[in-house]
Amino acid sequence: MNDSANANSAVWRDFPRTVLRGVGQVMFQDSMWTGLLFLIGIFWGAYAEGLGVVAWGAVVGVVVSTLAGYCLKLSDTNGAQGLWGFNGVLVGCAFPTFMGNTIWMWLALILCAAMTTWVRTALNRVFAPYGTSSFTFPFVLCTWFFLLAARYMHGMPPEFESVPVMASETVGHLDMSFGNLVVYWLKGISQVFLINSWVTGIFFLAGLAVCSWRAALWAAIASAVSLFTIILWRGPAADIAEGLYGFSAVLTGIALGATFCRTGNWRTWIWSLLGIVATVFIQAGMNAAFAPIGLATLTGPFCIGTWLFLIPGYKMFAPKF
Amino acid sequence: MNDSANANSAVWRDFPRTVLRGVGQVMFQDSMWTGLLFLIGIFWGAYAEGLGVVAWGAVVGVVVSTLAGYCLKLSDTNGAQGLWGFNGVLVGCAFPTFMGNTIWMWLALILCAAMTTWVRTALNRVFAPYGTSSFTFPFVLCTWFFLLAARYMHGMPPEFESVPVMASETVGHLDMSFGNLVVYWLKGISQVFLINSWVTGIFFLAGLAVCSWRAALWAAIASAVSLFTIILWRGPAADIAEGLYGFSAVLTGIALGATFCRTGNWRTWIWSLLGIVATVFIQAGMNAAFAPIGLATLTGPFCIGTWLFLIPGYKMFAPKF
Amino acid sequence: MNDSANANSAVWRDFPRTVLRGVGQVMFQDSMWTGLLFLIGIFWGAYAEGLGVVAWGAVVGVVVSTLAGYCLKLSDTNGAQGLWGFNGVLVGCAFPTFMGNTIWMWLALILCAAMTTWVRTALNRVFAPYGTSSFTFPFVLCTWFFLLAARYMHGMPPEFESVPVMASETVGHLDMSFGNLVVYWLKGISQVFLINSWVTGIFFLAGLAVCSWRAALWAAIASAVSLFTIILWRGPAADIAEGLYGFSAVLTGIALGATFCRTGNWRTWIWSLLGIVATVFIQAGMNAAFAPIGLATLTGPFCIGTWLFLIPGYKMFAPKF
Repeated sequence: MNDSANANSAVWRDFPRTVLRGVGQVMFQDSMWTGLLFLIGIFWGAYAEGLGVVAWGAVVGVVVSTLAGYCLKLSDTNGAQGLWGFNGVLVGCAFPTFMGNTIWMWLALILCAAMTTWVRTALNRVFAPYGTSSFTFPFVLCTWFFLLAARYMHGMPPEFESVPVMASETVGHLDMSFGNLVVYWLKGISQVFLINSWVTGIFFLAGLAVCSWRAALWAAIASAVSLFTIILWRGPAADIAEGLYGFSAVLTGIALGATFCRTGNWRTWIWSLLGIVATVFIQAGMNAAFAPIGLATLTGPFCIGTWLFLIPGYKMFAPKF
Repeated sequence: MNDSANANSAVWRDFPRTVLRGVGQVMFQDSMWTGLLFLIGIFWGAYAEGLGVVAWGAVVGVVVSTLAGYCLKLSDTNGAQGLWGFNGVLVGCAFPTFMGNTIWMWLALILCAAMTTWVRTALNRVFAPYGTSSFTFPFVLCTWFFLLAARYMHGMPPEFESVPVMASETVGHLDMSFGNLVVYWLKGISQVFLINSWVTGIFFLAGLAVCSWRAALWAAIASAVSLFTIILWRGPAADIAEGLYGFSAVLTGIALGATFCRTGNWRTWIWSLLGIVATVFIQAGMNAAFAPIGLATLTGPFCIGTWLFLIPGYKMFAPKF
Repeated sequence: MNDSANANSAVWRDFPRTVLRGVGQVMFQDSMWTGLLFLIGIFWGAYAEGLGVVAWGAVVGVVVSTLAGYCLKLSDTNGAQGLWGFNGVLVGCAFPTFMGNTIWMWLALILCAAMTTWVRTALNRVFAPYGTSSFTFPFVLCTWFFLLAARYMHGMPPEFESVPVMASETVGHLDMSFGNLVVYWLKGISQVFLINSWVTGIFFLAGLAVCSWRAALWAAIASAVSLFTIILWRGPAADIAEGLYGFSAVLTGIALGATFCRTGNWRTWIWSLLGIVATVFIQAGMNAAFAPIGLATLTGPFCIGTWLFLIPGYKMFAPKF
């Protein structure tokens, strides 16, 4: 009885740390300080965009999905590392971004955020035999269903009636002054949490750096390389300027360059750069595929890109554990 | 030789029972009486709708897919439990519902119904490592291909040129008198076999009850909860009135509440209710995703919803075998 | 050191054979002569169509993906059998067929062709537990992403703005004189490499015959049966005349009838014929599903059709190894 009470009080004492680590785990960092800086960046960016509700969604999402982990009595190790919360915080960012601010949207957000916790268990079980995990795909899959459902559920209406655009209309002119390129580059990082703000991008880089300079480096490289790639192949200017070709590649870059592959190896460098460039094409391809139903790809291109480079399981890139 | 002759005559003596159990297994009931009541409900509803051909399709479908099991010499145990027939009977309901009554439609129906038997073997092999099975997904997958093919094959024309509808046009007004709510609730159950008839819903509930009161209870609960959910979130009135937001949730409810989870446990109750509500959102999401190609989701949302709740394999919901 | 030098020179001496076997492996033939005849057929057909660039794409694709296998130090056995190249050669045919001839298209072709080599490792790992492999799906998956990406990347523009066509507009009149039927039948075979030429179809049949008369027979049967099927069900005349309902079925026919099932067995004959007919419906269904996004199915219908017939793993069709 006493033990259980102690355990319970320990849980609550550790709860804020667990929640903040959940925010940090979106970019693979098991650190509450990373999570805190990410969260500050989210609040800054959300309020700067006039969408403060997105930041509160993030808080609700990460708390709910972390609580779901406790309710389901999942492995404490996972919980302490923040692995229950990282899908939930993204659900919390996505819902108020794409749907109207109604009570029904919030109820759906809570259900969806909680769901990601057990959907993660399910998808990790599916990916385990292939030596990888589900990354942010529980968030992606569940959120796709809810965002699509919003078209038919007027209690949580979509924020905009997205109109599919044809390729020929999407080129536009991209202002390529140095200052603007830096802005696009930083927004490529901030869009990981669906935030369109270069200041937030700096907070995110700082958050990465406090935990792992390598992760910060690869986030910076990945955003730059993806920006370079999409400009070379002349992608749609408006989307480039908002960082929408960067965020998936940033996650692929951190995953391959700083997390799951052997580091300090020129082969891994090439492999990670290839993964980043491939993710840009997957991003553009999924954008085009989803345009007719007006759906956001979310971080789906990152998941697919990273799986295609990790599932082969080549020894030459395997970490030395 | 004599043994084989005996075995053969036993097969034919048991054939009607095997076929009827196939009908019953659509809702997880290994009982010929359930199957018989389901079949009566299908005939009643199909003729009441002026689509008697749907009922005959159901008979052909279940017989063909059961015969395919014999021809392929699959495990007798599966056969005796009706597990060869439940996908076929659904193929038989779907084809005449969505395609014109031509000789080529019937030939395609026979091919597709037979295919479900070996596609079930294939998909069960895929799902086996994850502790679950393919449910009605062999029917869903094969029928999707054939229904889509109908657009390009004028020998088996689609019954209607479905026009994608935008969200804003779909709200409509839902008559919420008590009598009408009961009708929607019963149609949510009858639509499991693509039948739009409240009388059929009663036959289906009765069929469930003769084999398992718990299955009947959860079918009733699931249809009510899904109706409540879609009304709260203000879904499209016309579809609600035809039970189109109920059928997948009904199957999820029977699967989680009365078949695959530990029963008599408050945790399972909550888990099953969450599964039912989640299935409603998955249904709405898939409706929206498929609207541009005018395809029916069939029981796909049930399969996805139930997988997401069973594949985690949490011990707290595991049956005590 | 000396050994390694010897090994290196052996690699380069064997390189042309390895590359040609890669071309042959598209239809499961481990033979450089098959590959050579295929390549001649591709050059003939591409130049006859006025699209010589397609043939050069094929050469670049197979060379790049084969080199990727060396760079990644994959199993020599796989390499010697041409298993690194068969996805790359198809990438090389598809890119100049569907995209404009720009430097960026060629760079993307090189990246995509190389990618298929490790994506094949990844997908084979996924399919291994189910007793089958990824076939040409690495090509299909990667090429889908790049073709879709072309809509948004003006550096590699799509060759045509494909307009989705409704079923009612697609019937048309099919000239069914004997000579024309032979042309459609041969084009069904040539379209395996996206070539629209009956002469190429003869080269391909000859290429198969020099390695395996059974493979040539089943290619011929499959193209004839798929032609017969799509005519019976009244598919779109223009596509039938270009062999677009044949190529996937041809691959399914060779896979089931001459490669992966027990041969010389009447059961396998029926099984293979069912697989061929099923592939025609899957082809039509995927054509309809992809029409709204104007995407080619590539050899996806072959992969799906063959998986559905091989993953069941029935002993009665299993090869006697």
